[in-house]
Amino acid sequence: LSLTIQWLHEADIVVLGSPKPEEIPLSWIQPGTTVLNCSHDFLSGKLGCGSLGVHFNGLIAEDDVSLLAAALRIQNMVSSGRRWLREQQHTRWRLHCLKLQPLSPVPSDLEISRAQTPKAVEVLAKEIGLLADEIEIYGKSKAKVRLSLLERLKDQADGKYVLVAGITPTPLGEGKSTVTVGLVQALTAHLNINSFACLRQPSQGPTFGVKGGAAGGGYAQVIPMEEFNLHLTGDIHAITAANNLLAAAIDTRILHENTQTDKKLGINKTDPNALTEEEIGKFARLNIDPSTITWQRVLDTNDRFLRKITIGQAPTEKGYSRQAQFDIAVASEIMAVLALTDSLVDMKERLGRMVVASDKNGQPVTAEDLGVTGALTVLMKDAIKPNLMQTLEGTPVFVHAGPFANIAHGNSSVLADKIALKLVGEEGFVVTEAGFGADIGMEKFFNIKCRASGLVPNAVVLVATVRALKMHGGGPGVSLLLPSSKHTFLKISLSLKTSLNEYRCKTTNVFITRTDTRAEIDLVCELAKRAGAFDAVPCYHWSIGGKGSVELARAVRDAANKGSRFRFLYDVQLPIVEKIRTIAQAVYGARDIELSPEAQSKIDRYTQQGFGNLPICMAKTHLSLSHQPDKKGVPRDFILPISDVRASIGAGFIYPLVGTMSTMPGLPTRPCFYDIDLDTETEQVKGLF
Amino acid sequence: LSLTIQWLHEADIVVLGSPKPEEIPLSWIQPGTTVLNCSHDFLSGKLGCGSLGVHFNGLIAEDDVSLLAAALRIQNMVSSGRRWLREQQHTRWRLHCLKLQPLSPVPSDLEISRAQTPKAVEVLAKEIGLLADEIEIYGKSKAKVRLSLLERLKDQADGKYVLVAGITPTPLGEGKSTVTVGLVQALTAHLNINSFACLRQPSQGPTFGVKGGAAGGGYAQVIPMEEFNLHLTGDIHAITAANNLLAAAIDTRILHENTQTDKKLGINKTDPNALTEEEIGKFARLNIDPSTITWQRVLDTNDRFLRKITIGQAPTEKGYSRQAQFDIAVASEIMAVLALTDSLVDMKERLGRMVVASDKNGQPVTAEDLGVTGALTVLMKDAIKPNLMQTLEGTPVFVHAGPFANIAHGNSSVLADKIALKLVGEEGFVVTEAGFGADIGMEKFFNIKCRASGLVPNAVVLVATVRALKMHGGGPGVSLLLPSSKHTFLKISLSLKTSLNEYRCKTTNVFITRTDTRAEIDLVCELAKRAGAFDAVPCYHWSIGGKGSVELARAVRDAANKGSRFRFLYDVQLPIVEKIRTIAQAVYGARDIELSPEAQSKIDRYTQQGFGNLPICMAKTHLSLSHQPDKKGVPRDFILPISDVRASIGAGFIYPLVGTMSTMPGLPTRPCFYDIDLDTETEQVKGLF
Repeated sequence: LSLTIQWLHEADIVVLGSPKPEEIPLSWIQPGTTVLNCSHDFLSGKLGCGSLGVHFNGLIAEDDVSLLAAALRIQNMVSSGRRWLREQQHTRWRLHCLKLQPLSPVPSDLEISRAQTPKAVEVLAKEIGLLADEIEIYGKSKAKVRLSLLERLKDQADGKYVLVAGITPTPLGEGKSTVTVGLVQALTAHLNINSFACLRQPSQGPTFGVKGGAAGGGYAQVIPMEEFNLHLTGDIHAITAANNLLAAAIDTRILHENTQTDKKLGINKTDPNALTEEEIGKFARLNIDPSTITWQRVLDTNDRFLRKITIGQAPTEKGYSRQAQFDIAVASEIMAVLALTDSLVDMKERLGRMVVASDKNGQPVTAEDLGVTGALTVLMKDAIKPNLMQTLEGTPVFVHAGPFANIAHGNSSVLADKIALKLVGEEGFVVTEAGFGADIGMEKFFNIKCRASGLVPNAVVLVATVRALKMHGGGPGVSLLLPSSKHTFLKISLSLKTSLNEYRCKTTNVFITRTDTRAEIDLVCELAKRAGAFDAVPCYHWSIGGKGSVELARAVRDAANKGSRFRFLYDVQLPIVEKIRTIAQAVYGARDIELSPEAQSKIDRYTQQGFGNLPICMAKTHLSLSHQPDKKGVPRDFILPISDVRASIGAGFIYPLVGTMSTMPGLPTRPCFYDIDLDTETEQVKGLF
Repeated sequence: LSLTIQWLHEADIVVLGSPKPEEIPLSWIQPGTTVLNCSHDFLSGKLGCGSLGVHFNGLIAEDDVSLLAAALRIQNMVSSGRRWLREQQHTRWRLHCLKLQPLSPVPSDLEISRAQTPKAVEVLAKEIGLLADEIEIYGKSKAKVRLSLLERLKDQADGKYVLVAGITPTPLGEGKSTVTVGLVQALTAHLNINSFACLRQPSQGPTFGVKGGAAGGGYAQVIPMEEFNLHLTGDIHAITAANNLLAAAIDTRILHENTQTDKKLGINKTDPNALTEEEIGKFARLNIDPSTITWQRVLDTNDRFLRKITIGQAPTEKGYSRQAQFDIAVASEIMAVLALTDSLVDMKERLGRMVVASDKNGQPVTAEDLGVTGALTVLMKDAIKPNLMQTLEGTPVFVHAGPFANIAHGNSSVLADKIALKLVGEEGFVVTEAGFGADIGMEKFFNIKCRASGLVPNAVVLVATVRALKMHGGGPGVSLLLPSSKHTFLKISLSLKTSLNEYRCKTTNVFITRTDTRAEIDLVCELAKRAGAFDAVPCYHWSIGGKGSVELARAVRDAANKGSRFRFLYDVQLPIVEKIRTIAQAVYGARDIELSPEAQSKIDRYTQQGFGNLPICMAKTHLSLSHQPDKKGVPRDFILPISDVRASIGAGFIYPLVGTMSTMPGLPTRPCFYDIDLDTETEQVKGLF
């Protein structure tokens, strides 16, 4: 084995073996080197080396194990081993950023998106350290990332975790997605810091109703924006399929239980104790009380005529008709499950736990009771993998899950954040956003999403436009901007301070500049800092890309490095009512809450059923800190009315309703689908935003 | 230019130029060589060579155009040009087939599928001559193929076109998909002949209801079968989204027209002549008569409770409720459009032409009238590309479109067939199948699909099982097989002869052997040949793969090479009633047809509206040649009742209803979703077929 010994001194891994490993003086091997024992069978090609997870081509025939051949084979093995070890670790990014040449005036979002050619997604994947078998490519510019990466990089320290939230918005939205994208473009393309944006997948239905994409805007976008906004990789379609399979299973089960004998159901025993577990689990009567069904059908279409319907009116359904509804697909509990799960095992458990109705004894009936857990998991097996895309400047983005902020928690997926935190490395940044205003999206991010994930945010960016500040400072509506006063701004800044201090996060306030004057911006920044913000900076990514948000990126980096004092707002072990009251008082500024009898009885029922220790997901308007959309600024001394309380047991939260929440949007009189077209020559989409 | 001249004699393409092309003696260039003129600018790197579709890196700086550099550059150009020219042509396949090791007894379909590792789809694509930019990969084993290939290979002669149809089946189906897959496995993996199978994409809904996949079965399958049966690349999801956007647009439009002033609709003119074209097209009142709406919502879920529903019952819909229904997604006219279209332009036109209702004057209202054509096309832009997969033996398969055989034509897409016919080359075979029995699927394949595509079939394989022959020969039902007699078989064989001779196609009869004895098979083969079949052979692909169908493959090759005498059954210019009568008499053996008053009035209306010259797509039971499922064998002298007539104007056919056709399947008492599960360790699907 003389040839091999020569080389042992330099190796990271040493394979001992063939034919007598004990003959190699171990003192020749450097301290710290991994030593693998290896048999003659291995060297002669009979065994692979599965324990290292590598495969290589044998150089020698079984009957010709010469010393030279053995040495070559070992060398081969070691270089494979080295490569494998290297692959197990986080690698430095070597990212090729895309150049931007911003035009003025800023063209439409679609024009900007189309003017930039994205990198092939496999190139991007390689640049950020993904292995070839960790991605599944969908077309040219989208890929799914496999969860096996979390196992490979489990020892890698997480990067910094940054949330982008907004102040109480105007009905037009204040650009949180745009800030999120602009910030990562600045961090990575201009400050050379690894960063990842994690965004929600938008619902496709509204895309054809009212203009306004969710891919960011201007020169801070995810591209190609039409892929982002339509179909993506089919995750929402999978949710629709799973949700509606469960709905069909419920009604069909009730019909069959009501119209068939036990024999037809597969039971021919009279003694209940004689039933096997399978018979009990699969064929026993569930006795679902139809009036208690909470599971609705969904579609990813804005179809207002499905808000309230009567189903089961064909003669084949034998009179078992009942009132029901369709919700928009992203309002499905399965979407909330997808957003909160952290593994395939956990997703399957959550799907099985989903409560769809009560039986005639008031006991909860779950998807597992209906025997559909496995099928739902199969339908969702690809949806659980986050979708990789890129920004206009070629930096990586995950687009994954988009639960309705109305009745769910409105945050993108835990899994995308976890994977991104590993990929950026310890010095990198993951930036994600929370739907609606800070009172809703940020509160739920902290108390629901972070509780589920165990992740701790390092900084919060609070997006505010002068437009929104003015409206909440006394303007009559978003379309008319009143002249502002110091007093107006101050009130708002104080409201920020109130809600943010609760979380003790380093906070950076950001101000979008589209319609604002420099004097106004300076004033707002000054007041925000005086009100307790870590820093307050204007940014210009919308008009010039990441370069316009470098100041923000620096402020975020500094804030994140100061250390976090994060804590949850409430203990989940508190009674449901106490948790609701805490949120209402500490975040919204309410004097107290008032429960309807319906809400009180639901709380009693959920507590009795053992669901009392779940976090709370408030379903409240995002247009005011109170329950009344027209109460701008910082309302005080109001009583928050809780009209009803519902539960998403699989997702893992109780959601109190503050007023009525629409779960199915409609199309406006002039839907934007009129303007959407496909150029059949170039195959390009036209008129989409 | 001395260096260049040396080399001109051997080139396929010569680039003249730099600085004085006229100095090159043209006599030095071989006859037949392509000559391109090329400027100094090109040689100095200022111009690309877009006309050849190639790009290459310049070797020389703009200010250093030496003769040597110019020559090198030209050489580079020529080799690019050669490669480009080669790519424009059909290339011989160099297919690496996968080996099968069949087990006995034959394991479950899913076990067989999983035991075989498919080739990476990009490898398969390359093997069959697809260029890198002609495919869009979806995961590891699926890819979409771009339609640009049809332009590239437009001068390539088509391969042979083979249809697999079946005799009137039993309710269990007779295995047409399995024969289709077995046949291509035999042709390519065992006879080394290029071949492609073109299959329908199955509806996902029934996958969770009754066992039985559509990917073939046993050792003749498309793999991975779970990818084939679930989601695929999202085409059906896209159809669902497009279909339901149109449905929502109809009801919302009626609501807005009924509840809003013209001003709100965007019209502020009183003189109709003063309206601009845009105002007329987009804002004018359509006055849809709600009672005439034929456009239904769809879901890819077996949900019987949606067969008849009342929609619009929420207070926000102001009392405009009406009765409606959901169909299974594959019953959408958009699926039939996808299956019959031959280009993006054509698909857009067909989508726009779809008639959804009549206005209050009885005029048809189309998708185009609703302004939604462009949006529908955008939603369908990826669905139009056929999906590439592979058989168990690694031969290529297209899976594309699957219109409901009940109310549509039940055949896979024209585009997949056209692309496959180019890819296999002149000596190759494309094998596709037609849903239901020959009286329905094959008749529609000939008179609807072939009429739309202009393609002419070269041979028909008619699948028959002894089981089905016995049932139609007098057996009481499929679960009980009666002893058979010569007389029984003869009757069936004669019925085949009757309907097949109409089309004058070379026909090969095939008999599946799963439950049949050798004596029975020999008898059936003999009788089939006596009845006019070109050949009749047993085949065994289900139990041993393509090797078991080599005899069939040889018979098909011989039949296809004998030349086709194909003609259409009827002239589309005949009146609708005449066309229906021709099909009823010539194919079903009816004495005559009988129209309900409803059917007659619809025929009058469609004729008056200008739709009288469309082909006919009969909606009839597949379990009998007649309209009565229990009439087995060859019923005679019956009168075929036409209860109603409907139209799919975008797809391009009139469909008469013979009895009631269910367009929404239900779940059985014990749906197979109980058995479906995902192993969260291995991520493998369990219990799917």
